[in-house]
Amino acid sequence: MENADTICKELSLRETAKFLKKHDNFIILTHSSPDGDTLGAGYALFYGLKEIGKIAAVICADVIPGKYNYFVHETDNVDVEEATIIAVDVAAKGLLGSLEETFGDIVDLCIDHHISNSRFSKYLYLDADASATCEIIFELLEEMKVNINTNAANAMYTGIATDTGCFKYSNVTAKTHMIASRLYEYGIDPANINKIMFDTKSRRLLELERMVLDTAEYHFDNRCIILSVTAEMQEQTGCSGSELESIAIISRSVEGVICGVSIKQTGSDTFKISLRTYPPLNASDIGKELGGGGHAAAAGATMNGTLSEVKQRIIEVVGRKMEALDAGISSPR
Amino acid sequence: MENADTICKELSLRETAKFLKKHDNFIILTHSSPDGDTLGAGYALFYGLKEIGKIAAVICADVIPGKYNYFVHETDNVDVEEATIIAVDVAAKGLLGSLEETFGDIVDLCIDHHISNSRFSKYLYLDADASATCEIIFELLEEMKVNINTNAANAMYTGIATDTGCFKYSNVTAKTHMIASRLYEYGIDPANINKIMFDTKSRRLLELERMVLDTAEYHFDNRCIILSVTAEMQEQTGCSGSELESIAIISRSVEGVICGVSIKQTGSDTFKISLRTYPPLNASDIGKELGGGGHAAAAGATMNGTLSEVKQRIIEVVGRKMEALDAGISSPR
Repeated sequence: MENADTICKELSLRETAKFLKKHDNFIILTHSSPDGDTLGAGYALFYGLKEIGKIAAVICADVIPGKYNYFVHETDNVDVEEATIIAVDVAAKGLLGSLEETFGDIVDLCIDHHISNSRFSKYLYLDADASATCEIIFELLEEMKVNINTNAANAMYTGIATDTGCFKYSNVTAKTHMIASRLYEYGIDPANINKIMFDTKSRRLLELERMVLDTAEYHFDNRCIILSVTAEMQEQTGCSGSELESIAIISRSVEGVICGVSIKQTGSDTFKISLRTYPPLNASDIGKELGGGGHAAAAGATMNGTLSEVKQRIIEVVGRKMEALDAGISSPR
Repeated sequence: MENADTICKELSLRETAKFLKKHDNFIILTHSSPDGDTLGAGYALFYGLKEIGKIAAVICADVIPGKYNYFVHETDNVDVEEATIIAVDVAAKGLLGSLEETFGDIVDLCIDHHISNSRFSKYLYLDADASATCEIIFELLEEMKVNINTNAANAMYTGIATDTGCFKYSNVTAKTHMIASRLYEYGIDPANINKIMFDTKSRRLLELERMVLDTAEYHFDNRCIILSVTAEMQEQTGCSGSELESIAIISRSVEGVICGVSIKQTGSDTFKISLRTYPPLNASDIGKELGGGGHAAAAGATMNGTLSEVKQRIIEVVGRKMEALDAGISSPR
């Protein structure tokens, strides 16, 4: 049975800290296709709870990429029946992936920074001003007066760095930098983390990027770029999964572009779309019209059809937004 | 007459603040081929001095790229005879470019963070632990109890962000983030600054990058990559100057590479070499052997010859370092 909106109770930071202290056995759920923030939040919370003698497991529907191994270590075995279920950085139960069936309707507490959080959990601690869920976890561990060990600090730094493009994006606040500064006290290894997260490209990815640049299409007076990654390119180079995220980064970096679109083939007639926009364009609006969703600056959708059909639909939707823009109408942020 | 080492007097932060308060007319020199840190430091100091009623000019041997226009504005006219001469982020008088002739031997105060500073000025405030000279300027303006206006704050944020790869590199400290956090109080526009500094690539640069990727040579078990930018490529794409810095960034981002070399043709038989290394390799050591210098992780040199001669010499020097590494000998950091 799905929890209705009305029965999701929002907690304060203090209440959330109390809630965690009150219970003893935890299963911490991260979202599927895990990124640095959901993993960082999950593991930092795990390390914090361990420091005060709790039992906790961190689980994820998908394989955790090896690049996170510097803070991802074995966690406890916890019986679902006895556990308090926590979801971190999970905006909707559908994002739990294959864990949704077991856990989707029994999440006790969700800790999140997505303003779009669908309130699927019994309790919710939401701070939409936080750049990353890891920012919240830091405040929570401080509120709980829990010792922050190096693993926890590395995990939180990772989440904050990856969700902010290493402090580049508009979601960064004075508080974000203050927390980063504090994390340096706990023996973190930021230069190495950033090298792994931002400055490491495989030779095959360099090769894929060259191929993708050949597909570049510019629309609407060069304000929109569309980059395509076909299944063939992925096969030829051996690039897949999160490696392909760099294509979206390229799409948002071209001078004059305010709408970067990358289309990644995921099946014979299935494509994953990544949208990156600059104000006054709103990626979330475009994502929704394409059947997906996301944030104001970064959103996505999954679409079916041939590559050219998918492109056509994207161009139509983006075109309407550009027209509205040119007419001086922009959607509220 | 060149100032000898012995007559360069090091000041404390407090003494530096007093020195600035005591004088009234300033010429602030930035280094040639200006970057975000030297410009940020020069202009932030300018804005700070203006706040307390001083007269100051900021000058640079080279044209200041338009991308810095959000904080680079007109400064005062100051007569050299009457002025106190300050150099910011200038490690040696040769880096003043065409300003060296007039100012090289009459710099009163140099404010710098390069440990290699050659002590060419009468007074020196050096903090080699600062990630950027702008970090020092922030502390100096605070010490002087000078109002920090938005122009000054944007300038300092720019210097810190650009010298740290937006908080990515190993020169970042807890203090760096603390200052960044403080700068958010002064109305800075970091998302926009970072977009300009890090996430804006012209179409012609994307095209150049594709060409350069074709030149990639791997050496020493793929631990060294050499990328070349010929004069022809620069002509064909129209890319030049600081735009080419992105090539060095690529060279340091390839998985497994600990020595990224980029060779940029600057004349018929002249090449500018950029070196980017990871520990235990030391870019400064390699740079020195090639006739240049720099920091542990980033250094450079200018070399003459044909492209293949230059490459050969680089491979020899890097090869010796790799051999030493394999034999377990690394240079002290």
